Amino acid sequence: ELQMNLEQIEKGGYEHFMLKEIHEQPSAISDTYRGRMLVDEGIIRMAGMDDNMERIANAKRFIIVACGTSWHAGLVAEYIFEDIARIPVEVEYASEFRYRNPVISENDVVIAISQSGETADTMAAIKLAKEKGAFTFGVCNVVGSSISRETNAGAYTHAGPEIGVASTKAFTTQITVLTLMALKLGKFKGTISHSDFQYHLREMELIPNKIKDSLKSDTIIREIANIYKDAPNCLYLGRGYNFPVALEGALKLKEISYIHAEGYPAAEMKHGPIALIDEQMPVVVIATKKGHYEKVVSNIQEIKSRKGKIIAIVTHGDEEVRDLADHVIEVPETIESLTPLLTTIPLQLLSYHIAVMLGKNVDQPRNLAKSVTVE
Amino acid sequence: ELQMNLEQIEKGGYEHFMLKEIHEQPSAISDTYRGRMLVDEGIIRMAGMDDNMERIANAKRFIIVACGTSWHAGLVAEYIFEDIARIPVEVEYASEFRYRNPVISENDVVIAISQSGETADTMAAIKLAKEKGAFTFGVCNVVGSSISRETNAGAYTHAGPEIGVASTKAFTTQITVLTLMALKLGKFKGTISHSDFQYHLREMELIPNKIKDSLKSDTIIREIANIYKDAPNCLYLGRGYNFPVALEGALKLKEISYIHAEGYPAAEMKHGPIALIDEQMPVVVIATKKGHYEKVVSNIQEIKSRKGKIIAIVTHGDEEVRDLADHVIEVPETIESLTPLLTTIPLQLLSYHIAVMLGKNVDQPRNLAKSVTVE
Repeated sequence: ELQMNLEQIEKGGYEHFMLKEIHEQPSAISDTYRGRMLVDEGIIRMAGMDDNMERIANAKRFIIVACGTSWHAGLVAEYIFEDIARIPVEVEYASEFRYRNPVISENDVVIAISQSGETADTMAAIKLAKEKGAFTFGVCNVVGSSISRETNAGAYTHAGPEIGVASTKAFTTQITVLTLMALKLGKFKGTISHSDFQYHLREMELIPNKIKDSLKSDTIIREIANIYKDAPNCLYLGRGYNFPVALEGALKLKEISYIHAEGYPAAEMKHGPIALIDEQMPVVVIATKKGHYEKVVSNIQEIKSRKGKIIAIVTHGDEEVRDLADHVIEVPETIESLTPLLTTIPLQLLSYHIAVMLGKNVDQPRNLAKSVTVE
Repeated sequence: ELQMNLEQIEKGGYEHFMLKEIHEQPSAISDTYRGRMLVDEGIIRMAGMDDNMERIANAKRFIIVACGTSWHAGLVAEYIFEDIARIPVEVEYASEFRYRNPVISENDVVIAISQSGETADTMAAIKLAKEKGAFTFGVCNVVGSSISRETNAGAYTHAGPEIGVASTKAFTTQITVLTLMALKLGKFKGTISHSDFQYHLREMELIPNKIKDSLKSDTIIREIANIYKDAPNCLYLGRGYNFPVALEGALKLKEISYIHAEGYPAAEMKHGPIALIDEQMPVVVIATKKGHYEKVVSNIQEIKSRKGKIIAIVTHGDEEVRDLADHVIEVPETIESLTPLLTTIPLQLLSYHIAVMLGKNVDQPRNLAKSVTVE
């Protein structure tokens, strides 16, 4: 009974840790950038980078190694780093990278992303990279964890403890840290203008409140969850910065509801997955205004003409997709590179509500461990 | 009636083009390497490379752009190029690459893979790469196609016409061409020894007969197809060179049987997908002796303990996996980098037989076109 009470207290009034952690994201993201992003001074301060700036900025290539949700954060980071800091990025499953005799040189920077900092395959990938002379950088949440100690430098996500097995605030704070890194590098290298840099910082400052806004879609998301909770399959589509968000949304649904959901870059539909689409298939499409909107609208039309059911994540006030989709969930507008921080939120809630309605153990899904410390 | 007869003649006695094309792979692969691989002389002759050898071998990075099945061939090529020729490789969805402001330099070689040579997104990616000054190289099947004309150089796959919408011989001949390219580069750069080079050529020469052997599993595959044809979902797992084969096997099943199949690198299971596994879930695992066998065996044990049904692709004579799996399909032994050419075969047959049993239109699956010439 005492433990029950303790757990209730820890859950802060929420029914599950996952729901609590979803709602903590506005403050978690603030905690991640606080003290680092000095908007008025126009600088980003990150000790792990400041101490190694030449080494990192002169990298010929970034190689990001990670697993699961962290790998999705790495895919978002690929877009951000290439776009803002103009450094070629390769993102690898840690488990594949470590075993495949990869080409790594002393000019590479290998970035490991891991919430726990204990992921076995990611740790092994970092050890391999160090042996080959690469500079290693850790993006972990747990302070003092193995990966944070093993890497040459790093930046913590400061998300606070994440108890739910399905990662939520760890993902969005990883993206926050990686965005700060890209902006800092872009400024140092001169690949982003001062005004664009400042604009990004100001938009980042608005994200926590915009996430609060996104969380208000809870009622409509619950209704959608109720309609599709018994679907045996689901597809998630996105383009650009929101392609990895589609992968992450699908992973959430897999993890806690045990529904087979799969993410795809929207344009790949025509190369196979569109054969799956009929009136039984719910398709979640991220269709925000920033991010190849017209291309996504055309993908939605294709799904519609095959009678697929469309749940679209749209920018507040969108009319065009609203006319096509079966359901729309709105998120506030932001700059393209920051949209993943908003579009992720309704996908987390959707998987959460479906899992609850199906009576699944949300915080401890079957077969899964919070951190995968074995290979 | 005349057309029926013509079509019957074109199908060469097979019930479908897809089945004919699966069975053509031994000769298609011979056609691909014939005249290029001069085993006794110890050389590989490819005009598109010979004419541009310095440029290609001095590339800082290869960027491979493709869609669908060709993208999977690109993923296999990443392993081959990095392993044999020690050139860093980045594989991209053409549709993502073209829209995302990627970092491309004059030191990069951008390789486009497309059976038809008309894939719109891949074509656009090549145009973008040329604008940025990269050297472009096409790997196409259709002679004189747009991509083969647009690229600076190239190598044809010589697979012959592929009529079935689900690509089969195009995939294995793409891997064959890309392997020849890697070996030629490795020899030029000195990253592969002469004896290892010769060994690879001799093993490649044995592949057509080994595919013929693999095709003999047809009866057992038909039995397996009959057991699982009504499964609503399926997972495909592989590691290393066979991770992309898992993706390709899953795509085949999606395309023609409309069963939601998904491929994963086996080690990623623990980061989410394993939650899907119960007694209803068939899991196809590629578990050949060469390629992290013990790691895959341990993945199989995990699936087994969650009561998943296991269909394993194993090396001829395997005992260990046979004791664990519900079904095994044997392929002959070869060197690790060539295993995809063999492990792909039973996965093609499995999807084919399931689709036929379900009464689907194998050669013209719903919603799909042979070549995707629109964005």
